[in-house]
Amino acid sequence: MKSDTVNMQPIGYVHTKAASVPRFYSISDIAGELIIDEEYSAGLCDVEPGSYITVVFYFHKSPQFEAEHLRVVPPSRNDFRGIFSTRSPLRPNPIGISKLRVTAVHANIISVVGLDMLDETPILDIKPAK
Amino acid sequence: MKSDTVNMQPIGYVHTKAASVPRFYSISDIAGELIIDEEYSAGLCDVEPGSYITVVFYFHKSPQFEAEHLRVVPPSRNDFRGIFSTRSPLRPNPIGISKLRVTAVHANIISVVGLDMLDETPILDIKPAK
Repeated sequence: MKSDTVNMQPIGYVHTKAASVPRFYSISDIAGELIIDEEYSAGLCDVEPGSYITVVFYFHKSPQFEAEHLRVVPPSRNDFRGIFSTRSPLRPNPIGISKLRVTAVHANIISVVGLDMLDETPILDIKPAK
Repeated sequence: MKSDTVNMQPIGYVHTKAASVPRFYSISDIAGELIIDEEYSAGLCDVEPGSYITVVFYFHKSPQFEAEHLRVVPPSRNDFRGIFSTRSPLRPNPIGISKLRVTAVHANIISVVGLDMLDETPILDIKPAK
């Protein structure tokens, strides 16, 4: 069985003035905004400043994945690891998951701290962080 | 700015004999397999039995999202919540994230426990669970 292609429309995108971001949200203090399409504003009503959210996004700057990327040396290690045991942005489906702290919410704009996504990164989903 | 559509090819799919699954992985003891496309087998080399993995999947049975679904009453509550503060499968992009326990790995097949996904659910990504 080969599954069909999945098509998704981003719900918004990241805005930040930072020209570069840390490799991972847990070591980031970069601030920015999640600009969510206005049609979804009502769905943000319970996103509260001070809380954390899980943001699912698309690594839009990642090159095309090739078989040679199935095993990679993560920056934090010196040996090869299978791609599915790493958080490399260069993966078969370039999906990223970050946990960000909310500092403010105004209508369709969520201010956050902890960005490890570049400016204009497409956002696919927002979920509560546990 | 309106972001472009994102297209993804599932890396595999869920196989389980269970006709129904719990609402959430944290309360599930359902077993099954993740059948990953053979072209990605080399990327699974460090997925180890006894460990947990984060599985990103597509809620393939969810109806089309409509504006009326922006606020929902979760099964665990009795008040409306904004969709982005819930884990409802009926969301703008029907992406699910589950943390599953690995019981065995054989080539391209990962045996897992904790399924909250139905048989034939498309899998988009696998990441290490922290």
